[in-house]
Amino acid sequence: MIIDIHGHYTTEPPALHTFRDKQLAGLADAARKPASSDLGISDEVLIKSVQPQVNFQKERGGDLTIFSPRAGGMAHHVGTEAISRQWSTVCNDLIYRICKLLPENFVGVGQLPQFPGVSPKNCIPELERCVSELGFVGVNLNPDASGGMWTDPPLIDRHWYPIYEKLCELDVPAMIHVSSSCNPNFHHTGAHYINGDTTAFMQLIQGNLFKDFPTLRLVIPHGGGAVPFHWGRYRGLAQDMGRPPLAEYLLKNVFFDTCVYHLPGIELLANVIPVDNILFASEMVGAVKGIDPQTGHHYDDTKRYVDQLESLSEQDRYKIFEGNARRVYPRLDTLLKKRKEKR
Amino acid sequence: MIIDIHGHYTTEPPALHTFRDKQLAGLADAARKPASSDLGISDEVLIKSVQPQVNFQKERGGDLTIFSPRAGGMAHHVGTEAISRQWSTVCNDLIYRICKLLPENFVGVGQLPQFPGVSPKNCIPELERCVSELGFVGVNLNPDASGGMWTDPPLIDRHWYPIYEKLCELDVPAMIHVSSSCNPNFHHTGAHYINGDTTAFMQLIQGNLFKDFPTLRLVIPHGGGAVPFHWGRYRGLAQDMGRPPLAEYLLKNVFFDTCVYHLPGIELLANVIPVDNILFASEMVGAVKGIDPQTGHHYDDTKRYVDQLESLSEQDRYKIFEGNARRVYPRLDTLLKKRKEKR
Repeated sequence: MIIDIHGHYTTEPPALHTFRDKQLAGLADAARKPASSDLGISDEVLIKSVQPQVNFQKERGGDLTIFSPRAGGMAHHVGTEAISRQWSTVCNDLIYRICKLLPENFVGVGQLPQFPGVSPKNCIPELERCVSELGFVGVNLNPDASGGMWTDPPLIDRHWYPIYEKLCELDVPAMIHVSSSCNPNFHHTGAHYINGDTTAFMQLIQGNLFKDFPTLRLVIPHGGGAVPFHWGRYRGLAQDMGRPPLAEYLLKNVFFDTCVYHLPGIELLANVIPVDNILFASEMVGAVKGIDPQTGHHYDDTKRYVDQLESLSEQDRYKIFEGNARRVYPRLDTLLKKRKEKR
Repeated sequence: MIIDIHGHYTTEPPALHTFRDKQLAGLADAARKPASSDLGISDEVLIKSVQPQVNFQKERGGDLTIFSPRAGGMAHHVGTEAISRQWSTVCNDLIYRICKLLPENFVGVGQLPQFPGVSPKNCIPELERCVSELGFVGVNLNPDASGGMWTDPPLIDRHWYPIYEKLCELDVPAMIHVSSSCNPNFHHTGAHYINGDTTAFMQLIQGNLFKDFPTLRLVIPHGGGAVPFHWGRYRGLAQDMGRPPLAEYLLKNVFFDTCVYHLPGIELLANVIPVDNILFASEMVGAVKGIDPQTGHHYDDTKRYVDQLESLSEQDRYKIFEGNARRVYPRLDTLLKKRKEKR
């Protein structure tokens, strides 16, 4: 089974964007607020909207995508906390419907109603709803709700502890994923995303978060940002700071996905990061949509790169494509086992 | 000849730190200002202070280091513009003296008196002094004078044009190098440095800077941050944005150093970045000072990694260790040729 752990709903129907416009227009003129959070999107429209993902999944040999609202769309820094809460609910509800309509293709991951300067404690009700009511197997946690201004405390700060406690209690992982950038220095998918990944990992080296949360699991997307390329730097920095070896210190709790869009990058990832810590992902219909003229295939068809890794054993391949996902997302594993029993 | 293009004066004598303390104390209490910018550091003390660098140079088989003030020490965001100006002058003067005392070991690169919110035009006098009076062959340009707050415009903005005009006129390159971070989210050498590199490269994709400055040369340190690891992402983003292929669009003007502290990283760098764009560097006695238990050698002994690249021809090796440096830093080439003639 091929599980892609990193897919976003980037092909939303226009009605969702219309709702968002009205929602934000309502900040300036209450008369323009959306009358209802019922978007009037039919099941047919929903199913049609995810055909690009479904088609790529089939063409590329994937089976199941862990699916969450568009990352750039979360925009936690926009509006107010109430706006963020309503927006998260609406976006998560769409993911829930898609996963119910196409359960063979998609399993849900939620967006949290974060807001800069507000305790992530405010996200607990939506996190509980995502897992307990909507059947989601994880959430995306934005390490910079300010959208490129980085005004909240680092991930190792107690500011974040309420959300970690709940993640552990529910036994779901968080993918550490920033959203759009309102800082003109940071292109969102070209700088802010990758910087967010790198920054988060370094924060984890600085703190000792997993001493307090030994069962917490965090996924760093986009291959871990710059981390594997600079693995020697990070091993050395940790060593200079008196930390245990990184594999022992962080890799029981931190995982990397394979959203790296060329073979040499994936080769490096598999070379330096233990196979138990690599989860297959493509973030397809995402940041990079084109076809690589050097290969004739989509840049984000990451399965091709993993398939080309000759050093992997069959067991390694199983781990990257399926086993690690079942271990890091135990609710996914439970779901898949239940489904199998039913057949 | 082995030229290390990225060395900082990280082993400054205590007198420099005493001066800096007095300088900053003077902001709060004018009575504490340093009486003079003459630090009272003797030539003997200067020579002794750089023995660690000289010893490593010899042990590791290097010949010459392009040497600039401590990057983290620039701290452009601290104090006032006048403070930054005085501090830059003092730091550059020390580099000048070291290069005069040990001309076989060191050639200078300058620190600019940047200050957040102030036009980089303010740096032109010091840039001219560095090149014309102190004989420096380049400068470090901080893309984020705010120290991790990223409040100034991106590098492609006209804000920066006066400095680019002068760099072209003087025919010296700039290394795009951030300084320390006052944002608790960004560990300075573990996140801010690498993010700064990644961010700068993405800004260059977004703009069309080299159309306006076809002879401008920028060096992105630390192996280009996350860029080579995500080379497919950057090629794909540029393609989606309608830019020409990256090699053609940016690589006549943008260069990467080899400050990547493990062999797999250097292998990737050499695999994806054309050999004409890679300049040998170690930033030794820098971010990572320890010995890698996996190799028994210092993490930052990057020459060992380059030496292990079997795919390189002799000509490639010459380019990485010497030829590219002479081309990117033409004033260094002129200097070395003059010295040779004198012998």
